[in-house]
Amino acid sequence: MQRYFLPCDYEEQETFNLVGDDFHHAKHVMRMGLDDECFLVFKNEHAIKAKIIEITDEKIIFEEVAKEEMAKEMPVKVIIACGYTKGDKLELVAQKATELGMHGLIAFPSKTSVVKWDEKKRNKKAQRLEKIVKEASEQSHRQVVPSVSLYGSFNDLLEKTTDFTQCLVAYEESSKQGENSQLVKTLMTCQPGDSLLIVFGPEGGITPEEIELLVEKKVQCCALGPRILRAETAPLYALSVMSYQWELNKK
Amino acid sequence: MQRYFLPCDYEEQETFNLVGDDFHHAKHVMRMGLDDECFLVFKNEHAIKAKIIEITDEKIIFEEVAKEEMAKEMPVKVIIACGYTKGDKLELVAQKATELGMHGLIAFPSKTSVVKWDEKKRNKKAQRLEKIVKEASEQSHRQVVPSVSLYGSFNDLLEKTTDFTQCLVAYEESSKQGENSQLVKTLMTCQPGDSLLIVFGPEGGITPEEIELLVEKKVQCCALGPRILRAETAPLYALSVMSYQWELNKK
Repeated sequence: MQRYFLPCDYEEQETFNLVGDDFHHAKHVMRMGLDDECFLVFKNEHAIKAKIIEITDEKIIFEEVAKEEMAKEMPVKVIIACGYTKGDKLELVAQKATELGMHGLIAFPSKTSVVKWDEKKRNKKAQRLEKIVKEASEQSHRQVVPSVSLYGSFNDLLEKTTDFTQCLVAYEESSKQGENSQLVKTLMTCQPGDSLLIVFGPEGGITPEEIELLVEKKVQCCALGPRILRAETAPLYALSVMSYQWELNKK
Repeated sequence: MQRYFLPCDYEEQETFNLVGDDFHHAKHVMRMGLDDECFLVFKNEHAIKAKIIEITDEKIIFEEVAKEEMAKEMPVKVIIACGYTKGDKLELVAQKATELGMHGLIAFPSKTSVVKWDEKKRNKKAQRLEKIVKEASEQSHRQVVPSVSLYGSFNDLLEKTTDFTQCLVAYEESSKQGENSQLVKTLMTCQPGDSLLIVFGPEGGITPEEIELLVEKKVQCCALGPRILRAETAPLYALSVMSYQWELNKK
């Protein structure tokens, strides 16, 4: 069933209006009509099943049918931070990581990042990623649209680390040395409501100097198994296993 | 370090020869020279670090330096079976699932598959997928190159199910009904050396009739968490959590 994200908090009320681009999508692309149902999702993570009771030239008016009971969001808010990568890999990560439940996406310039983006380019890229993330949220039945932030410096990332309950960095050298326990240990100690930042390097990997700066900020190195994952695959591995640990494997 | 897969079993011997395409790659693309080292991986899953002792016009001759000790393969052989999908999604799955440790890839025509491939088209597609899988195996440090099989009918898949220790099918309806335990249960009961088939539908999903036929063959339905994953994302989720359960989370 179609899903639309409304830019307001949910409050009990008689009717809800769909306007703007989503209105056009529902009316002209989905060709929805009277009595058709869809999900409406609000800023405060409430979601309702709603039925169309009126369609005008500028809005569709819905009434609530039922609350969406099933939790679609992970119990821990996971923020993925990726070094700037070439081509459209960040777009792939944005789409897949949204399906897999990330709460927010940060991208940052790492020493080995080949691309260099000025503020104008970053703003344009952020708009594109926000569109991808919104569409993936609708398609994967999320109750939150993940945030997107493109940073201008590695320092911005370092400063941000203090905002989270726990921080990890996926480090290839940890994999090569057979370190296998940090990820499990961290996921097991996370509590509902916590926030977790996990940092990934670009294609060229994260440098030992960058690792040192992150470790100074109490970010912990972890491995993602014995194989070497590409830059865009590693975040998908991390989010999948978080879902497994917190959503499927709970006692 | 570069990695080449040799089409023979490993036996202790004084020298090893790299010929054909891999020879050209090593000599002309990687511009390897005397004393340079790389990994050589054999059909029987042995891998060695080897050093160049001679380069001729048609081969590179290596001697063994050391065995590769670290296990890179999952303890359970996992075969991914995907319904034929549109565009290059199967290529994406082939690459990423190789990084994530699959042992083999099967693709099959599902009722909702939009593409219809005759034998000629399947052979061409298989060649392309085999190339992707081989390159991903080198890059991700695998000790096995996964197999690729493109089936002509859903029946081929049904008949194949008896070859495996356990079989699963990822079913969206199981997710919607909040079924959360089957995947964990199956992964927990797998033993080293077992084989596991896991089936995924194409974009349009697997039909209830297909599910029924699979269940008759003792294939068990499982959910992959509460969000709806795209056809190409679901296999990556499954392989990631298998690695977590069997490679990171072992006691």
